Amino acid sequence: YDYDGPHLVTQVPGPRSKMLLESLDSIQNTEAVQFFCDFKKSRGNWLVDADGNRLLDVYSQIASLPLGYNHPAIVSALADESNLSAFANRPALGVLPPVDFPDTLQKLLSRVAPPGLSQVQTMACGTCANENAFKAVFFWYRAKQRGSLIHTEEELESCMRHEAPGSPNLSILGFKGGFHGRTIGCSSSSHAAPLHKVDVPALDWPSAPFPATKYPLDVNTQENRQEEERCLDKVFQLMQEYKNKGRPVAGVVVEPIQSEGGDRHASNNFFRQLRKLAKENGSAFVVDEVQTGAGLTGKMWAHEYWGLEESPDIVTFSKKMVIGGLYFKEEFRPKGPFRIMNTWLGDPAKLVIMEAVLNVIHKDRLLDNMTETGQVILQGLEKLQDKHADILSNARGRGAFCAVDFPDTLTRDRAVATLRNKGVQGAGCGVKSLRVRPALIFQPHHARMFLDIMEETTREL
Amino acid sequence: YDYDGPHLVTQVPGPRSKMLLESLDSIQNTEAVQFFCDFKKSRGNWLVDADGNRLLDVYSQIASLPLGYNHPAIVSALADESNLSAFANRPALGVLPPVDFPDTLQKLLSRVAPPGLSQVQTMACGTCANENAFKAVFFWYRAKQRGSLIHTEEELESCMRHEAPGSPNLSILGFKGGFHGRTIGCSSSSHAAPLHKVDVPALDWPSAPFPATKYPLDVNTQENRQEEERCLDKVFQLMQEYKNKGRPVAGVVVEPIQSEGGDRHASNNFFRQLRKLAKENGSAFVVDEVQTGAGLTGKMWAHEYWGLEESPDIVTFSKKMVIGGLYFKEEFRPKGPFRIMNTWLGDPAKLVIMEAVLNVIHKDRLLDNMTETGQVILQGLEKLQDKHADILSNARGRGAFCAVDFPDTLTRDRAVATLRNKGVQGAGCGVKSLRVRPALIFQPHHARMFLDIMEETTREL
Ligand code: FES
Repeated sequence: YDYDGPHLVTQVPGPRSKMLLESLDSIQNTEAVQFFCDFKKSRGNWLVDADGNRLLDVYSQIASLPLGYNHPAIVSALADESNLSAFANRPALGVLPPVDFPDTLQKLLSRVAPPGLSQVQTMACGTCANENAFKAVFFWYRAKQRGSLIHTEEELESCMRHEAPGSPNLSILGFKGGFHGRTIGCSSSSHAAPLHKVDVPALDWPSAPFPATKYPLDVNTQENRQEEERCLDKVFQLMQEYKNKGRPVAGVVVEPIQSEGGDRHASNNFFRQLRKLAKENGSAFVVDEVQTGAGLTGKMWAHEYWGLEESPDIVTFSKKMVIGGLYFKEEFRPKGPFRIMNTWLGDPAKLVIMEAVLNVIHKDRLLDNMTETGQVILQGLEKLQDKHADILSNARGRGAFCAVDFPDTLTRDRAVATLRNKGVQGAGCGVKSLRVRPALIFQPHHARMFLDIMEETTREL
Repeated sequence: YDYDGPHLVTQVPGPRSKMLLESLDSIQNTEAVQFFCDFKKSRGNWLVDADGNRLLDVYSQIASLPLGYNHPAIVSALADESNLSAFANRPALGVLPPVDFPDTLQKLLSRVAPPGLSQVQTMACGTCANENAFKAVFFWYRAKQRGSLIHTEEELESCMRHEAPGSPNLSILGFKGGFHGRTIGCSSSSHAAPLHKVDVPALDWPSAPFPATKYPLDVNTQENRQEEERCLDKVFQLMQEYKNKGRPVAGVVVEPIQSEGGDRHASNNFFRQLRKLAKENGSAFVVDEVQTGAGLTGKMWAHEYWGLEESPDIVTFSKKMVIGGLYFKEEFRPKGPFRIMNTWLGDPAKLVIMEAVLNVIHKDRLLDNMTETGQVILQGLEKLQDKHADILSNARGRGAFCAVDFPDTLTRDRAVATLRNKGVQGAGCGVKSLRVRPALIFQPHHARMFLDIMEETTREL
């Protein structure tokens, strides 16, 4: 089930990938395509491309593949006839759920629920997870403002004209460098890069600075604390400012590690203070664990590291969780039917796969594996940056969720291309970072292969 | 593969459904749940519930199931080992597509593309299809305004503050009664019901009246034409008004039949005029075929009935298409990488099922079946409303996409419950309509069973 190393027969992308690209390009924009994949031949941490090149995958399909390629547990769940009906009959889960749905949710999602969050709603992706988290926040906030669960005639009528009070002037506070998706609501809370946002109308929602911390966090505590205080002060100011201009902050949304924004970490204390600030302002505290959730950091949920006094109000997930969704406190449960709704609300077929994934995480102790492997990766990157201080800096990580910086975008992009042609499939994030996002089955010996190729690459840059 | 009639052993929902409801209710709001389904026992047009009741399904999971339950072609596609890898390895389609992706798109999506639309982008649902259609419209419109594909420094910088020109004041014109989804962008273009919208911030986007036509359309042509002119005039006025207030209408979005809004039809001529008006105003013309597409109306795309001189600019789809997405003209193709993007961008596993569906549509001539069955349904509803004019009115339909009105919401809701307890699974839409949305395999003899039970129900109300 494992291969013993990379195997390169052409440049990546090779001639076959290039041919396929031409074909695909006749029907859609392909400028983001890296190469074409032969998923039948791929196995475990090894991604095989259209030309037969075999790469060690530290990107895992934008951090979305939990157990790598063709994991035996997933393959056997797919072969199990008792699961067939979940794949053949996609239901409208909000109105006509399958008989095993309550059990499945209890057994899978409730079993790994973040502490304190008893409620869960499945969705089909991280975007609808976040959009619906925001909606749950607005419902909750308006009910508080109104002092009643029942809408007034004026609200029901004004919302059809997009006017207050029915369409309220409420906002979600996000962070500069934060990323929560690309639909209009998600994009209005995201500030990772201009090309995610430009040309698209946005809501007037505030964005606070995210701490520009120094790494390693635990040796720069003094400086980092000052920087974090500065950002928390700014959050506080924005909350006042937006309240004063009649657009109060109904919710704060934050990633435990800013992922698309360039793997930016802050201290546990920062998040504890932020959670408190949200509470004091009457704003909901939403933690977006779409990229950090499901084990890569060594805990099921990255926010478990924070030692919060009070749990988040809502935690969103997707990617490695196989299905999207949101966990939430009872008080954020929508009142009345059809408030949080869409046709499918997720997909029981994905729950079949999730079951296999959770079983393997448990049985193979993959959270521990991520902690252990993460140490190898991070220590390796630190050693490399000591040796090549002109090229590498800011090695950082939690579990196997790691990153390192290059001097600039161009060098980082060259590094990604060089890595690929030496047999490592990685990717950038932010302006100049390389992100490491392996599957949960990435082991210390894979980490060492990755580090060797990193070293070679760095030397050649 | 067919059952020969409904079979009722308990009230619906029965005791087992009620027990399951209680269990599910401990972890999420269940107020919209009708009953629990035993999908393993369901077959074809017959939905079996948790208590063993067997219902003739004219709702098909909110119009989303193309071939009913456990269709042999889908079951055998699932059993085919060569498809396994599509289910086991969900890729990030925008960066690392599988080797067979270009071919699959050509063979499936291009084969049934609406005339004139050469480009297609898959998505995971109707909501992301519409949100991304709007984004493609905004990209196109801003490029026209700017006179260049290249963003200015000012745009790239102002978009991060959510200010023009980077975050432009552009709008999408929707219709009262229209429905395009429930995320913030989709919801801002939708006006079907206050409970879809209230409490959620909205963009200042205009909504025009949709013609309140009289049925049958072809005997009330004179009156309908006047009403349609009135609405088109209003569209024109709103376009001027929004241009004057600095929030021009970049796109118009419309459903061929307003579905959630209560099955509201307009003439082919109305849509032809609307298309022209959009063009003359420099607005994109987006047709939302999420509910009407994929054959239920007797054509693959409902807008094919219109006889347009120029095709729509974008057509969105989901539901019975199995996968979501958007077809579009070459000029709406985004320029540059990562403009239309998310982690998964659809799911090759759904394309496996779609292939089976399209093959069956073709081989079993299901579009013709929908025309033929639709005639039986519509003529039957017309006959019923002649006999029960106090209760039924406004029978209308295109293909098997049919509806009829009851005097008010309460009576309609009682009818839906009565139908259910006589063995028909149907559902309402709008204020007082019953919608008929069977699977594509619904045949004239199923239609006659449905009509018999409708008659019984009507007599008892
Ligand atoms: S928005 Fe999540 S699947 Fe479409």
